[in-house]
Amino acid sequence: MEKKDGYHVAVLGATGAVGQQMLNTLEQKNFPISTLTLLSSPRSAGKKLLFKGVEHTIQEVNPDSFSGVDIALFSAGGSVSKEYAEHAVRHGAIVIDNTSAFRMEESVPLVVPEVNEQALLKHQGIIANPNCSTIQMVVALEPIRQKYGLNKVIVSTYQAVSGSGAAAVDELYSQTKAIIHNESYEPAILPVKGEKNHYQIAFNAIPQIDKFEENGFTFEEMKMINETKKIMRLPDLHVAATCVRLPVATGHSESVYFEINEEGISVQEIKDLLATAPGVILQDDPDNQIYPMPADCVGKSDVFIGRIRKDLDELKGFHMWVVSDNLLKGAAWNSVQIAESLINLGIVK
Amino acid sequence: MEKKDGYHVAVLGATGAVGQQMLNTLEQKNFPISTLTLLSSPRSAGKKLLFKGVEHTIQEVNPDSFSGVDIALFSAGGSVSKEYAEHAVRHGAIVIDNTSAFRMEESVPLVVPEVNEQALLKHQGIIANPNCSTIQMVVALEPIRQKYGLNKVIVSTYQAVSGSGAAAVDELYSQTKAIIHNESYEPAILPVKGEKNHYQIAFNAIPQIDKFEENGFTFEEMKMINETKKIMRLPDLHVAATCVRLPVATGHSESVYFEINEEGISVQEIKDLLATAPGVILQDDPDNQIYPMPADCVGKSDVFIGRIRKDLDELKGFHMWVVSDNLLKGAAWNSVQIAESLINLGIVK
Repeated sequence: MEKKDGYHVAVLGATGAVGQQMLNTLEQKNFPISTLTLLSSPRSAGKKLLFKGVEHTIQEVNPDSFSGVDIALFSAGGSVSKEYAEHAVRHGAIVIDNTSAFRMEESVPLVVPEVNEQALLKHQGIIANPNCSTIQMVVALEPIRQKYGLNKVIVSTYQAVSGSGAAAVDELYSQTKAIIHNESYEPAILPVKGEKNHYQIAFNAIPQIDKFEENGFTFEEMKMINETKKIMRLPDLHVAATCVRLPVATGHSESVYFEINEEGISVQEIKDLLATAPGVILQDDPDNQIYPMPADCVGKSDVFIGRIRKDLDELKGFHMWVVSDNLLKGAAWNSVQIAESLINLGIVK
Repeated sequence: MEKKDGYHVAVLGATGAVGQQMLNTLEQKNFPISTLTLLSSPRSAGKKLLFKGVEHTIQEVNPDSFSGVDIALFSAGGSVSKEYAEHAVRHGAIVIDNTSAFRMEESVPLVVPEVNEQALLKHQGIIANPNCSTIQMVVALEPIRQKYGLNKVIVSTYQAVSGSGAAAVDELYSQTKAIIHNESYEPAILPVKGEKNHYQIAFNAIPQIDKFEENGFTFEEMKMINETKKIMRLPDLHVAATCVRLPVATGHSESVYFEINEEGISVQEIKDLLATAPGVILQDDPDNQIYPMPADCVGKSDVFIGRIRKDLDELKGFHMWVVSDNLLKGAAWNSVQIAESLINLGIVK
């Protein structure tokens, strides 16, 4: 089957933190686009954005916005996705949804191309992009699972505020500036927009991302747990997560403990494996203080891994430190990668 | 035996971040002092400090500085401790050392009064104050160990820069200010003073505290591992640590996974236990977004615990979030508490 020269791509939520990165990524990766339709809520409709030097006017989304669209990238929040995904599918578009609206639905592939690209073949119109903190972890764990099996994962995250949107980044910087200048600042967004209480994020760490579930875990933590099992096709994997928000604008970090199924594997074997793994850049040289940090990962598509150590007690246990740009591999780049896979697999024609 | 009205106390390293907090703590807790001798390196000698409204001149330390001293609080770095501890002991003082110089020596009690106060009875002149990140964790774990046993601990830390001294705090604020105002700033201290490379800490997370050991763990991580086993008298405890520096001035946080020896214990039972544990304040009410944060712990002596959850797979496993002021319970307050215990146990007369 011949590939087309270009596809009709729609971006819903074009003005958000992730939407902006989607447009940047489509441009930088030179994604084959014949027509680009930018869509948003009424609030942002009418705004103009440049794409490859050409001005595009953002249109208010409506049920018929998706007529003729091949691929629709959604990142305007879960309720918007729930309202418009069926309309996009009805018009023949394939939806790549960056919200949590459909991720755990059995009929919806939840895809990280380095891990489970083939799951796309079973799509029924909607494909879900996983949570940012899940994506970078499974990219790191999948090569290990393939070679040595995977039995247990305990992760503590160090997450950037841009995961809460552009307004949260503004809050971080405005609040930091206020504190530095001894001025007052009333937190209004973090940890969770719309929750009762808001806390200082500058020079602080907040152990809450998203709302609490009945079991004491946050929704973010449960997303990491459930999505990891689904993407890696390991329903019985032991996974636990503690998710923490930091005064970092962009770049999620993760302290990951994992147990494989084999004994006697060395740190060097894990390093050799990850050094050539897809989507991974190994930065692990303690003698020269080389390890990944969020400040270094911004604007890069890869998942950076370092500080790989063998546990001192558990023969099958290892520790590692995983860092990635949460707006790129954690969102925009993974979505565009899914779109590329749809073309390469002949799913979008 | 009668207690004296006051003791001759010497503070070595009085101008440092911890030394300052020791003086504040001695003052606030109204420690019984008859004579206060402030000591330092030649660099700070001659400076004047107020204690209870009275001006004290800092003297340059020498081998005979400790004549007549009952209790000597050391926090001027490991090499200074190694040089002067024997002189202090020779003069009959009991040294409470806040550096890592003697912590792992078998003849030196490593003490957190809530956990192992009785170890003081076997002292031979030197008592070691544990590492800040270790102290708050063992205060949280000890009541659990006593009631349910303790088998495994995996901790990821979120540590404040004041653990690297007052100059590191200056670096955090100066660098933050520079970034906010789009000015350049050359990191010179963090992650480790004297190491080859220095990295941005503002709006970043650095997975290195102290130097690397041959096994890939940092010295800070090995301190947490080895000190925890020694303080809790559990040489076979499985402990692993990943230590990370954050853009937070004061207040260490820890994401702690632990396994007890019993099955069937509920989160409520752990909460009830910790709610009345010595030195602990339970802040754990997810419905009202109540959990500890470093910004809230500054200036407080307690260890704050929240986010207690039962692991979803491991029947003996739990997660918790532990926060404390690293300069107080992590250093100055624990040292002064040891001094109080020395008096209460009749060791210092």
